[in-house]
Amino acid sequence: MRELDKFFYASSIAVIGASNDEKKAGYQIIRNLVELGYVGEVYPVNPKEDEIFGIKCYASLKDIDAPVDLILVSVPAPAVPGIFLDAKERGDVQAAVILASGFSETRIPERVELEEAVIKIAKEANIRVMGPNCVGIMNTENRLDTTFAAGIDKIPGSMSLVSQSGSLGATIAAFSVNQAVPVGFAKWAHVGNQSDIDVLDVIKYYKDDEKTKSIAMYMEGIDNAREFIEVAKDIAAEKAIVVLKVGRSELGSGAAASHTGSLVGADELYEAAFEQAGVLRVDTIEELLDTAKAISMQPLPQGNRIAVLTEAGGPGIISVDEIGMGDVAVLPKFSPETLKRLRELLPPMAIIDHTDGYVDMSAAADERHHAEALKIVLEDENVDGIIHLSVLPTFLNPKLMGEMSAEAIKQYDKPVTVCYLAGEFVQEGREALENAGIPTFEMPDRAAKAMINMVRRRQMLDRIGKTETGDEQAKDRQKIDAIIEKAQEQKVNLTEVESRQILAEYDIDFGQYALATSIEDAALKAEAIGYPLVLKIMSPDIIHKSDAGGVIVNVKNVEELKIAYEQVMKNAREYSADARINGVLLTPMLPEGTEMIIGAIRDAQFGPCVMVGFGGIFVEVLKDVNFKMAPVSRVEARDMVEKLKLFPVLDGIRGRAKLDVDAVVEVIMRISRLIVENEDIKEIDVNPIRVYEQGISALDARVII
Amino acid sequence: MRELDKFFYASSIAVIGASNDEKKAGYQIIRNLVELGYVGEVYPVNPKEDEIFGIKCYASLKDIDAPVDLILVSVPAPAVPGIFLDAKERGDVQAAVILASGFSETRIPERVELEEAVIKIAKEANIRVMGPNCVGIMNTENRLDTTFAAGIDKIPGSMSLVSQSGSLGATIAAFSVNQAVPVGFAKWAHVGNQSDIDVLDVIKYYKDDEKTKSIAMYMEGIDNAREFIEVAKDIAAEKAIVVLKVGRSELGSGAAASHTGSLVGADELYEAAFEQAGVLRVDTIEELLDTAKAISMQPLPQGNRIAVLTEAGGPGIISVDEIGMGDVAVLPKFSPETLKRLRELLPPMAIIDHTDGYVDMSAAADERHHAEALKIVLEDENVDGIIHLSVLPTFLNPKLMGEMSAEAIKQYDKPVTVCYLAGEFVQEGREALENAGIPTFEMPDRAAKAMINMVRRRQMLDRIGKTETGDEQAKDRQKIDAIIEKAQEQKVNLTEVESRQILAEYDIDFGQYALATSIEDAALKAEAIGYPLVLKIMSPDIIHKSDAGGVIVNVKNVEELKIAYEQVMKNAREYSADARINGVLLTPMLPEGTEMIIGAIRDAQFGPCVMVGFGGIFVEVLKDVNFKMAPVSRVEARDMVEKLKLFPVLDGIRGRAKLDVDAVVEVIMRISRLIVENEDIKEIDVNPIRVYEQGISALDARVII
Repeated sequence: MRELDKFFYASSIAVIGASNDEKKAGYQIIRNLVELGYVGEVYPVNPKEDEIFGIKCYASLKDIDAPVDLILVSVPAPAVPGIFLDAKERGDVQAAVILASGFSETRIPERVELEEAVIKIAKEANIRVMGPNCVGIMNTENRLDTTFAAGIDKIPGSMSLVSQSGSLGATIAAFSVNQAVPVGFAKWAHVGNQSDIDVLDVIKYYKDDEKTKSIAMYMEGIDNAREFIEVAKDIAAEKAIVVLKVGRSELGSGAAASHTGSLVGADELYEAAFEQAGVLRVDTIEELLDTAKAISMQPLPQGNRIAVLTEAGGPGIISVDEIGMGDVAVLPKFSPETLKRLRELLPPMAIIDHTDGYVDMSAAADERHHAEALKIVLEDENVDGIIHLSVLPTFLNPKLMGEMSAEAIKQYDKPVTVCYLAGEFVQEGREALENAGIPTFEMPDRAAKAMINMVRRRQMLDRIGKTETGDEQAKDRQKIDAIIEKAQEQKVNLTEVESRQILAEYDIDFGQYALATSIEDAALKAEAIGYPLVLKIMSPDIIHKSDAGGVIVNVKNVEELKIAYEQVMKNAREYSADARINGVLLTPMLPEGTEMIIGAIRDAQFGPCVMVGFGGIFVEVLKDVNFKMAPVSRVEARDMVEKLKLFPVLDGIRGRAKLDVDAVVEVIMRISRLIVENEDIKEIDVNPIRVYEQGISALDARVII
Repeated sequence: MRELDKFFYASSIAVIGASNDEKKAGYQIIRNLVELGYVGEVYPVNPKEDEIFGIKCYASLKDIDAPVDLILVSVPAPAVPGIFLDAKERGDVQAAVILASGFSETRIPERVELEEAVIKIAKEANIRVMGPNCVGIMNTENRLDTTFAAGIDKIPGSMSLVSQSGSLGATIAAFSVNQAVPVGFAKWAHVGNQSDIDVLDVIKYYKDDEKTKSIAMYMEGIDNAREFIEVAKDIAAEKAIVVLKVGRSELGSGAAASHTGSLVGADELYEAAFEQAGVLRVDTIEELLDTAKAISMQPLPQGNRIAVLTEAGGPGIISVDEIGMGDVAVLPKFSPETLKRLRELLPPMAIIDHTDGYVDMSAAADERHHAEALKIVLEDENVDGIIHLSVLPTFLNPKLMGEMSAEAIKQYDKPVTVCYLAGEFVQEGREALENAGIPTFEMPDRAAKAMINMVRRRQMLDRIGKTETGDEQAKDRQKIDAIIEKAQEQKVNLTEVESRQILAEYDIDFGQYALATSIEDAALKAEAIGYPLVLKIMSPDIIHKSDAGGVIVNVKNVEELKIAYEQVMKNAREYSADARINGVLLTPMLPEGTEMIIGAIRDAQFGPCVMVGFGGIFVEVLKDVNFKMAPVSRVEARDMVEKLKLFPVLDGIRGRAKLDVDAVVEVIMRISRLIVENEDIKEIDVNPIRVYEQGISALDARVII
């Protein structure tokens, strides 16, 4: 038996705090178990009642003279430890859902302790706990429902849900069954305070659950984001995880923080991490259900070539727009054979050749036309999936149409999402399809989005297989440690020279440079580097060198060098009389190039992350940067670069030369290693990096410890 | 009587081609009229039937011995003229819907002529026509329904619909009434081939229709886009027009063109024109209905400060995200009084102070808390509207909650959109609100989008009042005409000098420049302008001067000038031996600045349009340009600039100087006038324009005739 089976497959349940008062949760829980047809035994417990919903009520848990697997605890918080002592005494209780609130979520010390006390008893008694402050679980297989949500008449399906909000989770479940064609689900869970079982336990359980083909998740934010992502990545390699994560805007994440008390990470880190883990993020509750449903019912497309087969222009164009506005799926190019067969099959008004991969069969198409056209298109090896749309004219038989289409679709191992539009009239047609395992949707854009998300899932799976990270390591770790230890001892920042030295251990090349400690020294070293030069003041106390007048560029000869050297020293002293000066950094003037930024941070929730973006003022406005959790593989690093909005600038747009993307990718990988392997480093900022046709040059670097 | 009343308020209808065959439209039409309760008289016409749906059937239109207002024509196309001759003979028929297809939409010459012939008879008989190839109208007031859509059990409401697609229009109507809480509408129309009544007639009719409070439109593309926009602008000043226009992607507009045969304009021109006309564009069918419904039921907000009042975190955050991800609405800052009153009212778990304008009342809130909190927030003068969300716990009474909330809301003249989440359980609560005129929605994001679109409508209305365009006119029209006529006679392009001369007539300043026709002439004129200079070859045959080696910059003195002059002449001759050379343009080297582009085009559908964008390679990738139909007012021109993604670059980001946006706005207005007033000009391209802290400089210009 798997651990969470103790909850989902409990065959007897005691409800502590059961009630005949309709205003109480203890009433609704019993009602849900009884009226919605839970197949096991139910024992209400309440010393003040004799009978609830026609079932004998017990004064205490100890009085139940039959086995009890699971207890649902809906009594005031202070009474909960006593209940667990009773359960311990019984010895047969294996699991508990604590619906009661008033524990650690209040952040009141006594209440936090109360929760700890309960868990201690539970551990001693070998009882696994969900909650407190949670509504528990639903299982459509045995119709077990521990919630006090308004009776959700569940329908079995092949996706499972987990929610960080009980009310929103219940809403999603209610919405799913209230659709014109209900969306079934297998299991459902809300874990509340996670004092024992947490959200990771639930998704791990779903991973191995036979009934669960895809996982839908509602998320507000989590403290252990890195761990979550690592587990999710592991699961997503086998089963799709679709997530609705709120806090997409700054305003929204602010509000989310007030709600859950979670540390809510920057949304761009979530976005990046989901992508990296192969977790499909969606925007709305509808898209969450639609996507999880589509994936749970159908094979994934093998590629991104999705045909649109419609009988009405409007819905067809709406679907094509969904494809055209994204960069995930494309319309296929039909084979000549397919075009020929479609021309032979379809009514003369049909539009077949106008837009590649788009067929408008016209309103004259009948049930057979639809079914045969589906077959022809599915047989085309240039097609990976179909969005099939019809505003069924009244002279068609929706049921027949659904049955014939389903039979056609089932012959091929390719996904088809269907949208029949005409209200109640098409109900039987949609049901015929759904019964045959073909997902149907209310709106053309929803059918299209579900299919596009299946393509995204395919692409993520393809990428997950290519994530070996490199094994770059510091050439000389001791050297790095020494630099950092010295700065730590002296409690100073690292200078640019020290930052360059650390980066050099990961083969990030800054070309020639030298630190000069006197004018004479500078003149000598300048000769070796060659003019023209840049001079920069080096001081652990001057972070913003330009602001301090500490940078002079285009120094052309030794005369200018001497003047410039004195000038930067003078400026530095004026800027900060006490600044410790290490000397002046001499670097060559480098040729112009496209400027980029590569950096890394150590985030409180996501740990080490690496970042790349374009430099300069225009780009600052656009915030054209991409993050990923470190370390990154070559594929991931390249993905970060290619997904920048301005990537075409590197890629030879308008006859410009292609720039050295490989070199950029290499630096991203090395910096991602650097931040992972050196835990004292908080932040790295190599800015700017000039990118050339061959190679790159890093111009400045800052490592923060 | 208003002209379209002949259709929407017909009191007797003859259905030509009525049928007992369920597979025929003529069956469904009769069925819809009878079963859905049309209040007037219905006369089926079919020589082969005696009775249809229990109603006496007539052999011919002429046989009906009672008045006939409206005829619905569902017979094969070639039989239609005969029907109209019958109608003419009767003399009482005022209107006709031709449901039959097979006319001009086939583009077969005889069929186009057939349509013309029908319309000729109709005109002679004083019969107004909708169609052919259309399904006509619905009116929920008298339950008139001329369509053969699967019986849509209409519900009266206060928005009206018009669709360019019969099937999608019917789908929208079916979807609207099949919602958990149905969305009513007043009138509905599909106009097909528009041989007489067109879509503009319908929206003009809706404008003056008392029952219609807002107009929802489904659009694929139209030929007379400019006229449509001008009419729409006029209507939108009084009644909201909400439009779902497909073809948002290039792929989608390609597919749309195949469907309607309409000239489908670039989507960015539609987008701009909708904005300019105050037409609210939406993305999905759901958003179309939600927005039109919200606007039809409620007062508009006076500003953009929208509070979110929730009882559950999840839905609350989803709504806040919708606000935070756009730039339309903001959360308000409550007055201290409001905060104090909320603190006194709400349960201790409520979150009131954490995020400005966001209140999470907590699950402990009861019906009274909701109603009182609504009042307190609506009374705050810093609040323009509320999104109100609740996952009703089972201990609340949804009906009571809806009634109490509605009563609270009705006391104030501010809009509130409501989302109750919990499936069927909340049905009565939603109905209580809807009956009181408060719009409710299925999902929190939908309630939020509807409210945000109400704010957009408010902002558009505010802008519509400020669209007086300037009265700049050419200083010397004859001079422009002479330049253009000369080029037309010689069949050559305008040179840069001629383009500059035309622009100068609208006070677009290029600073000093001169055309030199010999080295000596150049030396003389260079002296007057001052070094350093730029030299450019001037030839009507060399459009791309740089490609021809026809541009040399930074010419510092007379020696360099002479060499450069010979060089550009030589390059030009090598580039094109036959090119006619007008001379060499001398311009000063101008200081660096932020480069922009201002231009204009004469579009086939939208007529003269003006555009502005940033220059350079980065921006070419971003396509950061905005269009509007010309002429533009100062407010509109400023809007074009401020809505550029990179606008912050002009606006003094990161301590940079603010640049002269006023000067940019002025040039946009002048160029918009120029293209409007000079019909021979096809395109104008002033590129680049350098923008400084004070003023701008145009560096190059191209006027295409």
